[in-house]
Amino acid sequence: MPIVQVELLEGRTLAQKRLLVEKVTQAIVESIGAPAEKVTIIIRDMSKDNYAKAGKLASDE
Amino acid sequence: MPIVQVELLEGRTLAQKRLLVEKVTQAIVESIGAPAEKVTIIIRDMSKDNYAKAGKLASDE
Amino acid sequence: MPIVQVELLEGRTLAQKRLLVEKVTQAIVESIGAPAEKVTIIIRDMSKDNYAKAGKLASDE
Amino acid sequence: MPIVQVELLEGRTLAQKRLLVEKVTQAIVESIGAPAEKVTIIIRDMSKDNYAKAGKLASDE
Amino acid sequence: MPIVQVELLEGRTLAQKRLLVEKVTQAIVESIGAPAEKVTIIIRDMSKDNYAKAGKLASDE
Amino acid sequence: MPIVQVELLEGRTLAQKRLLVEKVTQAIVESIGAPAEKVTIIIRDMSKDNYAKAGKLASDE
Repeated sequence: MPIVQVELLEGRTLAQKRLLVEKVTQAIVESIGAPAEKVTIIIRDMSKDNYAKAGKLASDE
Repeated sequence: MPIVQVELLEGRTLAQKRLLVEKVTQAIVESIGAPAEKVTIIIRDMSKDNYAKAGKLASDE
Repeated sequence: MPIVQVELLEGRTLAQKRLLVEKVTQAIVESIGAPAEKVTIIIRDMSKDNYAKAGKLASDE
Repeated sequence: MPIVQVELLEGRTLAQKRLLVEKVTQAIVESIGAPAEKVTIIIRDMSKDNYAKAGKLASDE
Repeated sequence: MPIVQVELLEGRTLAQKRLLVEKVTQAIVESIGAPAEKVTIIIRDMSKDNYAKAGKLASDE
Repeated sequence: MPIVQVELLEGRTLAQKRLLVEKVTQAIVESIGAPAEKVTIIIRDMSKDNYAKAGKLASDE
Protein backbone atom coordinates (compact mmCIF):
# COMPACT_ATOMS: atom_id res chain seq x y z
CA MET A 1 0.00 0.00 0.00
CA PRO A 2 2.88 2.47 0.07
CA ILE A 3 2.19 5.52 -2.08
CA VAL A 4 5.17 7.60 -3.07
CA GLN A 5 5.00 11.10 -4.55
CA VAL A 6 8.22 12.46 -6.02
CA GLU A 7 8.72 16.07 -7.10
CA LEU A 8 11.60 16.55 -9.53
CA LEU A 9 12.92 19.53 -11.41
CA GLU A 10 11.85 19.07 -15.02
CA GLY A 11 14.26 17.72 -17.56
CA ARG A 12 14.61 14.14 -16.39
CA THR A 13 14.64 11.69 -19.28
CA LEU A 14 12.27 8.78 -19.63
CA ALA A 15 15.20 6.44 -18.98
CA GLN A 16 15.95 8.23 -15.70
CA LYS A 17 12.32 8.02 -14.60
CA ARG A 18 12.15 4.33 -15.53
CA LEU A 19 15.21 3.68 -13.40
CA LEU A 20 13.89 5.84 -10.58
CA VAL A 21 10.62 3.92 -10.23
CA GLU A 22 12.43 0.57 -10.38
CA LYS A 23 14.96 1.52 -7.75
CA VAL A 24 12.63 3.37 -5.42
CA THR A 25 10.18 0.45 -5.50
CA GLN A 26 12.98 -1.94 -4.67
CA ALA A 27 14.17 0.34 -1.86
CA ILE A 28 10.73 0.18 -0.28
CA VAL A 29 10.44 -3.57 -0.71
CA GLU A 30 13.83 -4.09 0.94
CA SER A 31 13.27 -1.68 3.80
CA ILE A 32 9.73 -2.38 4.97
CA GLY A 33 8.90 -5.67 3.30
CA ALA A 34 5.95 -4.42 1.25
CA PRO A 35 5.37 -6.47 -1.90
CA ALA A 36 6.44 -4.64 -5.07
CA GLU A 37 2.94 -4.97 -6.52
CA LYS A 38 1.59 -2.73 -3.78
CA VAL A 39 3.98 0.16 -4.39
CA THR A 40 2.52 3.11 -6.30
CA ILE A 41 4.71 6.01 -7.45
CA ILE A 42 3.61 9.38 -8.77
CA ILE A 43 6.23 11.68 -10.30
CA ARG A 44 5.56 15.38 -10.65
CA ASP A 45 7.82 17.57 -12.78
CA MET A 46 8.43 21.06 -11.46
CA SER A 47 9.48 23.90 -13.73
CA LYS A 48 12.29 26.05 -12.36
CA ASP A 49 9.74 28.83 -11.93
CA ASN A 50 7.84 26.62 -9.52
CA TYR A 51 10.53 25.63 -7.05
CA ALA A 52 12.20 27.83 -4.46
CA LYS A 53 14.73 27.41 -1.72
CA ALA A 54 15.52 30.17 0.78
CA GLY A 55 12.97 32.45 -0.85
CA LYS A 56 14.52 32.29 -4.32
CA LEU A 57 13.13 30.57 -7.41
CA ALA A 58 15.39 27.95 -9.01
CA SER A 59 15.05 29.91 -12.26
CA ASP A 60 16.68 32.91 -10.59
CA GLU A 61 19.75 31.06 -9.34
CA MET B 1 -13.59 22.34 4.71
CA PRO B 2 -12.84 19.03 3.00
CA ILE B 3 -10.05 19.34 0.46
CA VAL B 4 -9.77 16.60 -2.12
CA GLN B 5 -6.78 16.01 -4.38
CA VAL B 6 -7.30 13.59 -7.25
CA GLU B 7 -4.50 12.24 -9.43
CA LEU B 8 -5.71 10.87 -12.77
CA LEU B 9 -3.92 9.49 -15.78
CA GLU B 10 -4.13 12.18 -18.45
CA GLY B 11 -6.71 11.94 -21.19
CA ARG B 12 -9.88 12.58 -19.22
CA THR B 13 -12.27 14.85 -21.08
CA LEU B 14 -13.68 18.05 -19.68
CA ALA B 15 -17.07 16.35 -19.48
CA GLN B 16 -15.59 13.55 -17.36
CA LYS B 17 -13.91 16.01 -15.03
CA ARG B 18 -17.10 18.04 -14.71
CA LEU B 19 -18.98 14.90 -13.74
CA LEU B 20 -16.22 13.79 -11.39
CA VAL B 21 -16.26 16.99 -9.34
CA GLU B 22 -20.07 16.98 -9.16
CA LYS B 23 -20.24 13.39 -8.02
CA VAL B 24 -17.28 13.44 -5.65
CA THR B 25 -18.63 16.58 -3.98
CA GLN B 26 -22.01 14.93 -3.57
CA ALA B 27 -20.35 11.79 -2.17
CA ILE B 28 -18.67 13.87 0.51
CA VAL B 29 -21.83 15.79 1.34
CA GLU B 30 -23.79 12.55 1.73
CA SER B 31 -21.16 10.72 3.77
CA ILE B 32 -19.95 13.29 6.26
CA GLY B 33 -22.56 16.02 6.06
CA ALA B 34 -20.22 18.80 4.95
CA PRO B 35 -22.01 21.53 2.97
CA ALA B 36 -21.21 21.36 -0.76
CA GLU B 37 -19.92 24.96 -0.70
CA LYS B 38 -17.09 23.89 1.58
CA VAL B 39 -15.77 21.11 -0.67
CA THR B 40 -12.68 21.96 -2.70
CA ILE B 41 -11.33 19.60 -5.35
CA ILE B 42 -7.98 19.73 -7.12
CA ILE B 43 -7.38 17.43 -10.08
CA ARG B 44 -3.87 16.64 -11.24
CA ASP B 45 -3.28 14.95 -14.57
CA MET B 46 -0.41 12.47 -14.65
CA SER B 47 1.34 11.54 -17.87
CA LYS B 48 1.97 7.82 -18.31
CA ASP B 49 5.67 8.54 -17.81
CA ASN B 50 4.88 9.84 -14.35
CA TYR B 51 2.94 6.97 -12.85
CA ALA B 52 4.27 3.59 -11.81
CA LYS B 53 2.92 0.48 -10.18
CA ALA B 54 5.15 -2.40 -9.07
CA GLY B 55 8.24 -0.54 -10.26
CA LYS B 56 7.03 -0.11 -13.83
CA LEU B 57 5.94 3.09 -15.56
CA ALA B 58 2.42 3.08 -17.02
CA SER B 59 4.00 4.05 -20.36
CA ASP B 60 5.96 0.77 -20.34
CA GLU B 61 2.95 -1.47 -19.79
CA MET C 1 -5.17 4.24 -11.09
CA PRO C 2 -6.91 7.24 -9.58
CA ILE C 3 -5.41 8.27 -6.25
CA VAL C 4 -7.53 10.44 -4.00
CA GLN C 5 -6.27 12.33 -0.97
CA VAL C 6 -8.92 13.78 1.32
CA GLU C 7 -8.20 16.21 4.15
CA LEU C 8 -10.96 16.35 6.76
CA LEU C 9 -11.30 18.18 10.04
CA GLU C 10 -10.86 15.56 12.76
CA GLY C 11 -13.84 14.08 14.48
CA ARG C 12 -15.36 12.02 11.68
CA THR C 13 -16.55 8.64 12.86
CA LEU C 14 -15.43 5.35 11.41
CA ALA C 15 -18.91 4.93 9.95
CA GLN C 16 -18.62 8.27 8.15
CA LYS C 17 -15.22 7.37 6.74
CA ARG C 18 -16.48 3.97 5.63
CA LEU C 19 -19.32 5.65 3.79
CA LEU C 20 -17.03 8.31 2.37
CA VAL C 21 -14.66 5.84 0.73
CA GLU C 22 -17.54 3.79 -0.67
CA LYS C 23 -19.29 6.79 -2.16
CA VAL C 24 -16.20 8.61 -3.44
CA THR C 25 -14.98 5.42 -5.11
CA GLN C 26 -18.36 4.99 -6.77
CA ALA C 27 -18.35 8.64 -7.86
CA ILE C 28 -15.05 8.10 -9.64
CA VAL C 29 -16.17 4.85 -11.24
CA GLU C 30 -19.32 6.51 -12.56
CA SER C 31 -17.65 9.67 -13.81
CA ILE C 32 -14.51 8.46 -15.53
CA GLY C 33 -15.09 4.74 -15.88
CA ALA C 34 -12.12 3.59 -13.82
CA PRO C 35 -12.64 0.16 -12.26
CA ALA C 36 -13.31 0.35 -8.50
CA GLU C 37 -10.33 -1.93 -7.80
CA LYS C 38 -7.99 0.75 -9.10
CA VAL C 39 -9.23 3.55 -6.85
CA THR C 40 -7.03 4.33 -3.86
CA ILE C 41 -8.14 6.77 -1.16
CA ILE C 42 -6.05 8.31 1.60
CA ILE C 43 -7.79 10.26 4.34
CA ARG C 44 -5.89 12.72 6.49
CA ASP C 45 -7.43 14.12 9.65
CA MET C 46 -6.61 17.74 10.42
CA SER C 47 -6.80 19.14 13.92
CA LYS C 48 -8.48 22.54 14.15
CA ASP C 49 -5.08 24.02 14.96
CA ASN C 50 -3.86 22.85 11.56
CA TYR C 51 -6.43 24.33 9.23
CA ALA C 52 -6.91 27.96 8.34
CA LYS C 53 -9.13 29.97 6.07
CA ALA C 54 -8.62 33.68 5.47
CA GLY C 55 -5.61 33.70 7.75
CA LYS C 56 -7.47 32.34 10.76
CA LEU C 57 -7.11 28.91 12.38
CA ALA C 58 -10.31 26.85 12.63
CA SER C 59 -9.63 26.57 16.36
CA ASP C 60 -9.90 30.36 16.66
CA GLU C 61 -13.28 30.64 14.97
CA MET D 1 12.85 22.11 7.24
CA PRO D 2 9.45 23.58 6.43
CA ILE D 3 8.14 22.39 3.09
CA VAL D 4 5.41 24.45 1.52
CA GLN D 5 3.23 23.33 -1.40
CA VAL D 6 1.13 26.03 -3.05
CA GLU D 7 -1.60 25.33 -5.60
CA LEU D 8 -2.49 28.38 -7.73
CA LEU D 9 -4.84 28.88 -10.63
CA GLU D 10 -2.63 29.19 -13.69
CA GLY D 11 -1.83 32.57 -15.12
CA ARG D 12 0.43 33.97 -12.43
CA THR D 13 3.41 35.80 -13.84
CA LEU D 14 7.00 35.01 -13.05
CA ALA D 15 7.20 38.29 -11.14
CA GLN D 16 4.23 37.27 -9.00
CA LYS D 17 5.76 33.88 -8.24
CA ARG D 18 9.10 35.47 -7.41
CA LEU D 19 7.37 37.76 -4.95
CA LEU D 20 5.28 34.93 -3.55
CA VAL D 21 8.26 32.75 -2.65
CA GLU D 22 10.11 35.69 -1.11
CA LYS D 23 7.18 36.76 1.02
CA VAL D 24 5.99 33.29 2.03
CA THR D 25 9.53 32.35 3.08
CA GLN D 26 9.78 35.51 5.15
CA ALA D 27 6.36 34.81 6.70
CA ILE D 28 7.59 31.41 7.86
CA VAL D 29 10.87 32.78 9.18
CA GLU D 30 9.04 35.45 11.17
CA SER D 31 6.36 33.17 12.55
CA ILE D 32 8.21 30.04 13.59
CA GLY D 33 11.83 31.12 13.54
CA ALA D 34 13.02 28.65 10.92
CA PRO D 35 16.07 29.89 9.01
CA ALA D 36 15.22 31.02 5.45
CA GLU D 37 17.73 28.54 4.01
CA LYS D 38 15.62 25.66 5.29
CA VAL D 39 12.37 26.77 3.64
CA THR D 40 11.42 24.89 0.48
CA ILE D 41 8.48 25.97 -1.67
CA ILE D 42 6.81 24.05 -4.49
CA ILE D 43 4.26 25.86 -6.65
CA ARG D 44 1.75 23.91 -8.72
CA ASP D 45 -0.29 25.64 -11.39
CA MET D 46 -3.85 24.39 -11.79
CA SER D 47 -5.80 24.83 -14.98
CA LYS D 48 -9.38 26.02 -14.51
CA ASP D 49 -10.51 22.56 -15.61
CA ASN D 50 -8.68 21.09 -12.64
CA TYR D 51 -10.10 23.09 -9.77
CA ALA D 52 -13.60 22.89 -8.35
CA LYS D 53 -15.50 24.48 -5.51
CA ALA D 54 -18.99 23.35 -4.49
CA GLY D 55 -18.98 20.68 -7.19
CA LYS D 56 -18.33 23.10 -10.04
CA LEU D 57 -15.17 23.49 -12.13
CA ALA D 58 -13.61 26.96 -12.14
CA SER D 59 -13.83 26.84 -15.94
CA ASP D 60 -17.61 26.58 -15.68
CA GLU D 61 -18.06 29.63 -13.48
CA MET E 1 -8.37 29.80 -4.49
CA PRO E 2 -4.78 29.31 -3.39
CA ILE E 3 -4.34 26.18 -1.29
CA VAL E 4 -1.22 25.98 0.82
CA GLN E 5 0.08 22.84 2.50
CA VAL E 6 2.84 23.32 5.07
CA GLU E 7 4.85 20.50 6.60
CA LEU E 8 6.55 21.44 9.88
CA LEU E 9 8.59 19.49 12.36
CA GLU E 10 6.33 18.93 15.37
CA GLY E 11 6.64 21.11 18.41
CA ARG E 12 5.34 24.40 17.08
CA THR E 13 3.08 26.17 19.55
CA LEU E 14 -0.45 27.25 18.82
CA ALA E 15 0.76 30.86 18.92
CA GLN E 16 3.36 30.10 16.23
CA LYS E 17 0.80 28.41 14.01
CA ARG E 18 -1.64 31.28 14.50
CA LEU E 19 1.05 33.71 13.41
CA LEU E 20 2.13 31.47 10.53
CA VAL E 21 -1.32 31.31 8.94
CA GLU E 22 -1.82 35.07 9.35
CA LYS E 23 1.49 35.94 7.78
CA VAL E 24 1.47 33.34 5.01
CA THR E 25 -2.04 34.41 4.01
CA GLN E 26 -0.92 38.03 3.90
CA ALA E 27 2.15 37.06 1.86
CA ILE E 28 -0.09 35.45 -0.76
CA VAL E 29 -2.51 38.38 -0.81
CA GLU E 30 0.34 40.83 -1.33
CA SER E 31 2.17 38.81 -3.97
CA ILE E 32 -0.57 37.58 -6.27
CA GLY E 33 -3.54 39.70 -5.27
CA ALA E 34 -5.80 36.84 -4.19
CA PRO E 35 -8.39 37.91 -1.61
CA ALA E 36 -7.56 36.65 1.89
CA GLU E 37 -10.93 34.88 2.12
CA LYS E 38 -9.86 32.55 -0.68
CA VAL E 39 -6.63 31.39 0.93
CA THR E 40 -6.75 27.96 2.56
CA ILE E 41 -3.85 26.63 4.62
CA ILE E 42 -3.29 23.09 5.85
CA ILE E 43 -0.50 22.47 8.36
CA ARG E 44 0.89 18.98 8.85
CA ASP E 45 3.14 18.20 11.81
CA MET E 46 5.95 15.74 11.12
CA SER E 47 7.57 13.74 13.88
CA LYS E 48 11.38 13.63 13.71
CA ASP E 49 11.07 9.96 12.74
CA ASN E 50 9.17 11.01 9.65
CA TYR E 51 11.49 13.54 8.09
CA ALA E 52 14.82 12.87 6.40
CA LYS E 53 17.44 14.88 4.62
CA ALA E 54 20.37 13.28 2.82
CA GLY E 55 19.12 9.82 3.74
CA LYS E 56 19.10 10.46 7.47
CA LEU E 57 16.10 10.82 9.77
CA ALA E 58 15.88 14.06 11.75
CA SER E 59 15.64 11.92 14.90
CA ASP E 60 19.10 10.49 14.15
CA GLU E 61 20.83 13.85 13.81
CA MET F 1 15.98 19.20 -4.97
CA PRO F 2 13.92 16.01 -5.15
CA ILE F 3 11.17 15.94 -2.54
CA VAL F 4 9.67 12.57 -1.74
CA GLN F 5 6.44 12.02 0.18
CA VAL F 6 5.76 8.47 1.33
CA GLU F 7 2.45 7.30 2.79
CA LEU F 8 2.73 4.07 4.80
CA LEU F 9 0.26 2.09 6.83
CA GLU F 10 1.14 2.73 10.47
CA GLY F 11 3.14 0.22 12.42
CA ARG F 12 6.54 0.55 10.75
CA THR F 13 9.38 0.51 13.22
CA LEU F 14 11.97 3.23 13.53
CA ALA F 15 14.53 0.78 12.13
CA GLN F 16 12.38 0.24 9.04
CA LYS F 17 11.94 3.97 8.50
CA ARG F 18 15.66 4.55 8.98
CA LEU F 19 16.38 1.93 6.32
CA LEU F 20 13.66 3.29 4.04
CA VAL F 21 15.06 6.82 3.94
CA GLU F 22 18.60 5.54 3.38
CA LYS F 23 17.61 3.26 0.53
CA VAL F 24 15.13 5.60 -1.15
CA THR F 25 17.67 8.40 -1.08
CA GLN F 26 20.26 6.12 -2.64
CA ALA F 27 17.75 5.00 -5.28
CA ILE F 28 17.22 8.61 -6.32
CA VAL F 29 20.92 9.40 -6.35
CA GLU F 30 21.61 6.39 -8.56
CA SER F 31 18.74 6.95 -10.96
CA ILE F 32 18.80 10.68 -11.64
CA GLY F 33 22.17 11.75 -10.31
CA ALA F 34 20.89 14.18 -7.69
CA PRO F 35 23.31 14.63 -4.79
CA ALA F 36 22.13 12.88 -1.61
CA GLU F 37 22.24 16.17 0.32
CA LYS F 38 19.44 17.52 -1.87
CA VAL F 39 17.00 14.67 -1.26
CA THR F 40 14.22 15.40 1.23
CA ILE F 41 11.84 12.68 2.40
CA ILE F 42 8.60 13.07 4.32
CA ILE F 43 6.92 9.96 5.72
CA ARG F 44 3.26 10.01 6.66
CA ASP F 45 1.73 7.18 8.69
CA MET F 46 -1.83 6.23 7.78
CA SER F 47 -4.11 4.48 10.22
CA LYS F 48 -6.08 1.58 8.73
CA ASP F 49 -9.20 3.73 9.07
CA ASN F 50 -7.65 6.25 6.70
CA TYR F 51 -6.71 4.09 3.73
CA ALA F 52 -9.05 2.48 1.24
CA LYS F 53 -8.74 0.41 -1.89
CA ALA F 54 -11.73 -0.45 -4.06
CA GLY F 55 -14.05 1.51 -1.78
CA LYS F 56 -13.13 -0.45 1.34
CA LEU F 57 -11.17 0.75 4.36
CA ALA F 58 -8.06 -1.29 5.24
CA SER F 59 -9.53 -1.68 8.74
CA ASP F 60 -12.52 -3.51 7.24
CA GLU F 61 -10.47 -6.06 5.32
